[in-house]
Amino acid sequence: MSQLRLYDYVASANCYKVRLLLAQLKRPYERIPVDIFAGETLTDDYAAKNPMRTTPVLEDEDGRFLPESNAILLYLADSTPFLPSEAFERAQVVRWLIYEQTDVIPTMGGLRFRLLVGRLAASDDDAIRRKQGGEEVLRLLDDHLAQHEFFVGERYSVADVGIYGYVHVAGEAGIDMQPYENLRAWLERVQRQPGYMNDLEPYPPNAAPGAGRSLYD
Amino acid sequence: MSQLRLYDYVASANCYKVRLLLAQLKRPYERIPVDIFAGETLTDDYAAKNPMRTTPVLEDEDGRFLPESNAILLYLADSTPFLPSEAFERAQVVRWLIYEQTDVIPTMGGLRFRLLVGRLAASDDDAIRRKQGGEEVLRLLDDHLAQHEFFVGERYSVADVGIYGYVHVAGEAGIDMQPYENLRAWLERVQRQPGYMNDLEPYPPNAAPGAGRSLYD
Repeated sequence: MSQLRLYDYVASANCYKVRLLLAQLKRPYERIPVDIFAGETLTDDYAAKNPMRTTPVLEDEDGRFLPESNAILLYLADSTPFLPSEAFERAQVVRWLIYEQTDVIPTMGGLRFRLLVGRLAASDDDAIRRKQGGEEVLRLLDDHLAQHEFFVGERYSVADVGIYGYVHVAGEAGIDMQPYENLRAWLERVQRQPGYMNDLEPYPPNAAPGAGRSLYD
Repeated sequence: MSQLRLYDYVASANCYKVRLLLAQLKRPYERIPVDIFAGETLTDDYAAKNPMRTTPVLEDEDGRFLPESNAILLYLADSTPFLPSEAFERAQVVRWLIYEQTDVIPTMGGLRFRLLVGRLAASDDDAIRRKQGGEEVLRLLDDHLAQHEFFVGERYSVADVGIYGYVHVAGEAGIDMQPYENLRAWLERVQRQPGYMNDLEPYPPNAAPGAGRSLYD
């Protein structure tokens, strides 16, 4: 039995989501920094931990590896107040966490990354397409929150943790959050949760265009 | 209490995945056909069931709605032999089901759809990009199956049901399955499972380029 370990990149919101939940759960863990722009996810050793070569990866106390930020959130939240105990509500959490990966990330997440590291300019066709997609996603999320305090079951859960990750930095993708009143109020509710912290770092100087493998392609 | 209902499109592999599991679980349900190409997901009534406007949607016995095929699979499989009882293995199932949505579907799933309804020709840049991405995904899946009979826990689970959906028709995306020996053997193992059936239908004549909302954009 060893300690819980997190293979982690400081500037990734997918990694931050897991760090946030671990802080809120007060779970001790060893943080193992992975510099994706220095090629550290491209080694054979890393592929043995995670063939998808993404961050984060959780290593459990038995030395087993779990990739996919939202799978990690669900695993850590199991049997805690961060995941509903009722099966249908749990499934709703999964539903929102899948949507986060398929719709939130490729739009505002992928755009933010590309703008910040200089792979896209705001006027590029692909940037415009991602921005429009992001605005549609934010509208859908905002409409849901018009009726609900949190995404599932009227209480804070890992559905909120997951969606918060990239939505709270949508402004860095050049998206104006002003029209999304319910979302802005929800962001503040998340920030008022016990144990909330934010240690998401900006991309480092070596995050140059073309350096490393893209996070989102 | 009413019956379990599935809002379902016959030619969608996302819907077929749920029909397959329901058949294997021997769960009775009412099937409500949704003709996406006739605009039936674009109504206000449909948005009230699923604001993402995707198929399938499950309606439970209490009249609650659950979108996202893989969230539905996890919900239906809960406390059955189709989902591991051990928490870490359950998380691995979630991990593969998220990967299916983020990597399997936009590549071979999206390409198959666009080729079959004529939105792309095989020589288009976007078709070539999706095909190459699909081949990378199939290589990763095949490598995993070199060491494992099934995706998680050495037994058939909803991870296999989910991945089977679009992988078993990757040939219709113009991808040659010959190099993926382990995947081909796994496809046969899936097909030998008790209760296996395949009622995935081809796209209908009204699935013309531009008709309806894209399944994958």
